[in-house]
Amino acid sequence: MEILTPKAFRFGCTEASIKKPGKKDLAIIVSECDAVCAGVFTTNTVKSAPVKICRYHIQTHKARAILVNSGNANACTGTQGLHDVQAMLNKTASLLDISPTMIYPCSTGVIGTPMPMQRILPALDSLINDIGKSTLHDVAQAIMTTDSFAKVSSRLVNIGGVDVTVSGICKGAGMICPNMATMLCFILTDALVTEDFLQRSLQKAVKETFNCLSVDGDMSTNDTVLMLANGVAKNPPLSAKTKQVFAQALFEVCDELAKMIAKDGEGASKLLKVIVKNASTKSDAHKAARAIANSLLVKTAIYGNDANWGRIMASLGYSQAKFDPNKVDILINGVMVAQNGLTTNNDTRASEAMKASEVVVEVDLHYGKAQAHFYSCDLTEQYIKINAEYRT
Amino acid sequence: MEILTPKAFRFGCTEASIKKPGKKDLAIIVSECDAVCAGVFTTNTVKSAPVKICRYHIQTHKARAILVNSGNANACTGTQGLHDVQAMLNKTASLLDISPTMIYPCSTGVIGTPMPMQRILPALDSLINDIGKSTLHDVAQAIMTTDSFAKVSSRLVNIGGVDVTVSGICKGAGMICPNMATMLCFILTDALVTEDFLQRSLQKAVKETFNCLSVDGDMSTNDTVLMLANGVAKNPPLSAKTKQVFAQALFEVCDELAKMIAKDGEGASKLLKVIVKNASTKSDAHKAARAIANSLLVKTAIYGNDANWGRIMASLGYSQAKFDPNKVDILINGVMVAQNGLTTNNDTRASEAMKASEVVVEVDLHYGKAQAHFYSCDLTEQYIKINAEYRT
Repeated sequence: MEILTPKAFRFGCTEASIKKPGKKDLAIIVSECDAVCAGVFTTNTVKSAPVKICRYHIQTHKARAILVNSGNANACTGTQGLHDVQAMLNKTASLLDISPTMIYPCSTGVIGTPMPMQRILPALDSLINDIGKSTLHDVAQAIMTTDSFAKVSSRLVNIGGVDVTVSGICKGAGMICPNMATMLCFILTDALVTEDFLQRSLQKAVKETFNCLSVDGDMSTNDTVLMLANGVAKNPPLSAKTKQVFAQALFEVCDELAKMIAKDGEGASKLLKVIVKNASTKSDAHKAARAIANSLLVKTAIYGNDANWGRIMASLGYSQAKFDPNKVDILINGVMVAQNGLTTNNDTRASEAMKASEVVVEVDLHYGKAQAHFYSCDLTEQYIKINAEYRT
Repeated sequence: MEILTPKAFRFGCTEASIKKPGKKDLAIIVSECDAVCAGVFTTNTVKSAPVKICRYHIQTHKARAILVNSGNANACTGTQGLHDVQAMLNKTASLLDISPTMIYPCSTGVIGTPMPMQRILPALDSLINDIGKSTLHDVAQAIMTTDSFAKVSSRLVNIGGVDVTVSGICKGAGMICPNMATMLCFILTDALVTEDFLQRSLQKAVKETFNCLSVDGDMSTNDTVLMLANGVAKNPPLSAKTKQVFAQALFEVCDELAKMIAKDGEGASKLLKVIVKNASTKSDAHKAARAIANSLLVKTAIYGNDANWGRIMASLGYSQAKFDPNKVDILINGVMVAQNGLTTNNDTRASEAMKASEVVVEVDLHYGKAQAHFYSCDLTEQYIKINAEYRT
């Protein structure tokens, strides 16, 4: 799929040797003019230094640039961590001749290790020199940690006769759980929108996509979704209808990126989508879908092509969602394996159907009208290997 | 360690071909006289047929026998599952000439598959014939599923000049999380105690041991802890002091069994003990210890001998316990890896210290006076293998 880039955004990437040599690990996104900015951040009590600074900067709802590194999370680094971010921002701001408060810093990587400033600060010169030479896709590549592919999604929509582009990139593979993930996500648009509408739309989209996503149930210290809208498309003010068009494009970009993260879950061989139907409340549907998608026993069964619906029932049972076990129907990739809480003796057929790259588990509670879904992935030996050896 | 058996309990085991042939999978524990009975059961909404029946029988607080099978959980089996248990109880009761309501049924194994009654019912004859020929250890072996060793613990204490024995057996390896586990635990004593005291003591011991235990964060449909006290030791009525002596023995038996379960976690290569000190409340200490012990990223780091304390901080951060990240000290097997939330640059030394069969993570929040601990294990490729192939 072609990657569209919104007007008047430019990109730079370089190698600062934060990751192993030979890989770009420092990137910048610059808007040619002031952009309206929205953000959603980790709810972890332990927040990285860049998250703290982003939360401070975003009070202005204005941005010119996002400065991001991979390889080091700059979390649990104390006052030094904050000083280090500030030094990076100051130098970048001075090179770009903008205010440091208009730059949003993001980091991803190992926690608890001070930033290698002696390598980062000099690399900022080559980073700024690279602006305009790299693409959005290059930035998506530079922010990868254990990701196996770069994640990009974009949509072109018409707002009152004007073409507007919404494009997003993200990284995230492990430590992905609501709310959010070890993920960084940057969404850019040339649409002209108000800061208030941008923030509300972004929150809604994140809630329905990145917050319905789990790789290993852990939640990180660095999760950040930032959105910049520079207004260069010069569309007319949004109407109720074009607000919907814009929100839908944003949702689709986030949904596609969320699916890519699940698919790229550390060591994952399959995407798992859990749909819970006819729950008593939306919150119950969400709880149920989340418990199933997070269950290690379910995730290993998916890996083994084992239609072990008993494990799905067991996780439903501790999800704290209200339901009647005797009313539950379960389908795996379209094959009904349980009806009214009892086996249909279709396990063999379902196991065959599970030999696909995507497994959809549908649970019908017959207990109300609410629905929710959750993306996850299977759990494989490779996950263990990646995470046992992450720092070695 | 020598296994002590309380007076006037007898044991039987046999092969009913519920598990793969060649393994005993049906067992019975019989008290020669009526025993006082206490129990704690799974809080999962989905409860197995035997759990439902135990919860019904225990209203009398009296028992003569525990009838248990491995290989099939008899969960998600509907009305048929209840009929099947009843048929097993009726036949056993008639052979033993006791009331079926004095027998407590337990099952462990695969969920959602009807019980192979055509093999179980005939096997009950040989089971009853075996009573007196098997030992408590044999029963511990017959209830194993993915367990790699039989789990038995016992204590001898003196109550007012009389020797009293408390002995427990359990099974449990995966799907272990508070509250309780895919675990069955049977505790027997010849002490003479009131039903009220027995129930309270058992609940307290379970809360401090089996509910502080996690293997994979899943909670089963069959978890059961049953305790029988037949009074044959004829000790004098318990005083405030001897109540403590008895409760301590019970705690030690449960604690030892809980530790064995964690050590035998599916695929585990190491026992993990997480201690959280100086939390604001007991509940906060428990939440924090639990989040750390349940984190896949922590568990894989333990496996890889990686003193990745950043992951410990991240899980603390989403545990919902109150704390100040800048006050946290973390020790791994005695080596301080973080002080006041910052690295001490001792990771290499800590990694060396982690090359042991037990890893103790101590987290001092310096935020209050409450303490809690949690047992868990590392997460290895072997866990995936066991659970991806469980039914194949």
